[in-house]
Amino acid sequence: MNFKRRIGRVAEYLVENGFDGMICTNPESVFYLTNAPFVTGSAGKALYISKDGKASLVVSSLDFEEACDRSEGAEIVKMDMGEPLFERLRKVAGGAEKVGFEDDFVTVRSYGALKKKFSLTEIGTAIEKMREVKDPEELERIETALGASDRAAAKTISNLRDGMTEIEAASELEYHMRREGGEALAFETIVASGPRAVYPHGMPSKRRASGGEAVVFDFGVKASGYCSDTSRTFFFGQPRDEMVKVYDIVLEAQNAAISAARAGITGKELDGVARAVIEGHGYGKFFVHGTGHGVGIAVHEGPSVNSRNEGQLVPGNVVTIEPGIYIPKVGGVRIEDMIVITEGGNRNLTRFRKDRIVV
Amino acid sequence: MNFKRRIGRVAEYLVENGFDGMICTNPESVFYLTNAPFVTGSAGKALYISKDGKASLVVSSLDFEEACDRSEGAEIVKMDMGEPLFERLRKVAGGAEKVGFEDDFVTVRSYGALKKKFSLTEIGTAIEKMREVKDPEELERIETALGASDRAAAKTISNLRDGMTEIEAASELEYHMRREGGEALAFETIVASGPRAVYPHGMPSKRRASGGEAVVFDFGVKASGYCSDTSRTFFFGQPRDEMVKVYDIVLEAQNAAISAARAGITGKELDGVARAVIEGHGYGKFFVHGTGHGVGIAVHEGPSVNSRNEGQLVPGNVVTIEPGIYIPKVGGVRIEDMIVITEGGNRNLTRFRKDRIVV
Repeated sequence: MNFKRRIGRVAEYLVENGFDGMICTNPESVFYLTNAPFVTGSAGKALYISKDGKASLVVSSLDFEEACDRSEGAEIVKMDMGEPLFERLRKVAGGAEKVGFEDDFVTVRSYGALKKKFSLTEIGTAIEKMREVKDPEELERIETALGASDRAAAKTISNLRDGMTEIEAASELEYHMRREGGEALAFETIVASGPRAVYPHGMPSKRRASGGEAVVFDFGVKASGYCSDTSRTFFFGQPRDEMVKVYDIVLEAQNAAISAARAGITGKELDGVARAVIEGHGYGKFFVHGTGHGVGIAVHEGPSVNSRNEGQLVPGNVVTIEPGIYIPKVGGVRIEDMIVITEGGNRNLTRFRKDRIVV
Repeated sequence: MNFKRRIGRVAEYLVENGFDGMICTNPESVFYLTNAPFVTGSAGKALYISKDGKASLVVSSLDFEEACDRSEGAEIVKMDMGEPLFERLRKVAGGAEKVGFEDDFVTVRSYGALKKKFSLTEIGTAIEKMREVKDPEELERIETALGASDRAAAKTISNLRDGMTEIEAASELEYHMRREGGEALAFETIVASGPRAVYPHGMPSKRRASGGEAVVFDFGVKASGYCSDTSRTFFFGQPRDEMVKVYDIVLEAQNAAISAARAGITGKELDGVARAVIEGHGYGKFFVHGTGHGVGIAVHEGPSVNSRNEGQLVPGNVVTIEPGIYIPKVGGVRIEDMIVITEGGNRNLTRFRKDRIVV
């Protein structure tokens, strides 16, 4: 990955907008700019980038060795144990005055401490916006992650049995995702059966799936720090006619949205394509979420594919297309692929089959 | 769990401190107060608690069904799709004027939007402080999670083989953690071998562990929303003498800290107990992190066991004790248990063996 080039783009942004430098503390953005590894939820790292393009990564003694071995393009600065991060950051920033910070990430508390040391100006989501357009190396990592989850799903379906618990099903899938090369789960695996399938975020439980119930699986792994995100709905036993119909409607909506996705369409318009299909069949009120979201270093990032995003998709955006229908007390179906937007259309990055599967 | 009682304690706090109400958006605290489920990193839920003890949970249509079925003690309010959260929150809060917010969680951006609707005052970490003292039901959930990870570790060691990759080892452990009842991983499993073991946060890689290398495993699951967190170091092949010595020093330091842990000792003093042992053997500069941290709904929460925490531990605190020694280019050892502080001492909640294991 060309981290120097990414840092260079940030420096250009700083010069254009009159900043002396910026402080980046979102660990996903720090990883994007330096390759410095992170675990989800870890904190305590901060990257200072000057308008001259010098990048300094301030880390604790805990993370120093790994940062030295793995990061690229940034000077690594080790804090003393117990030393406040912001004090070291002030030293690193030298005489910089107008300094940008990520107002959509920094908490009110941290801001209070930081503004004692710096003259701060909101920088908004400038780095997140850069991250929305994937370069070929990022696409390769995403496809590596999807390859692992695709192969794992294929191996898992032959191990699924009518009557097994959601947790048992999740354990099979996660085992194969690891064996196929996933370096971590991209998010907490969802397995939600029967009436629980109406919980779009349902964590696996000890509930047994059987009797033709629809079971929603939503899963993904990381490869070199990039995420995959896939949903499929399998039937445990022969499904009832209504759920077969619902499955076919969701698949129709998903295929329609994928056919419509291209550079220039807005997130709202693309959401409308999937929604129109589901509404046309009379199930509109059961499609209770947006059609999709961007995926990259974070499993949920920009751009959104929902009614609130009036911005146009551009080549290099990687988004999910995942309509769903959730009927309270009855069941739910969701089908999700990841696509990359291209000039004339898009390329579907998910290879795993979407036909109706009965286990 | 007695969610009404927890809400009642928050209401008392609000009255005592002159608040009309508070807004709680940290998903872990929302779960603590209402049992409303969450997936790590999910957002879009907000809980409003009035000084009269009325709790209203505002959720999206996506989460409405699950919130209705699973939360307790709070009224569930569904937003319209696309409706801004803060607008609905303003309606729910009625005429409330002085409203508390979590300044250590809310971002500067959200604060900007929120303060247009409310007269806001920092509430600090009041809820987090309540969460630090576990009640018997919370301890039971934590012990359930630890039971699953303890049994999984025991099953895993018989499947570990000299020469297997870190990812293969992680896949075995995670499979068993699921099968033993883990509803989710509590965090990204760490498996770090040989020189990679000096990365305290090392994600599993395709590196093969062999030749007597020390391999650090750091792992945990969730049970009913509560986390376990355990570290063990296994040798893949017969270890060199120095690493045997390092193992024994880390174990000595860990046992010393566990013996010293009781109500009234400060986090700093307890950290000092483990550190003194390691320094006494001349390895002080290789112990590059604090001795431990609180665990509960979050895998990292208060109270800290490190040099920055001058506060005293109290009965009901659940903390890890996890000293480590990491020698660059050579290897690392970490051993971690979870203990609950009691009046006269503590109880070790982790049962898995700590003797030196060679696979």
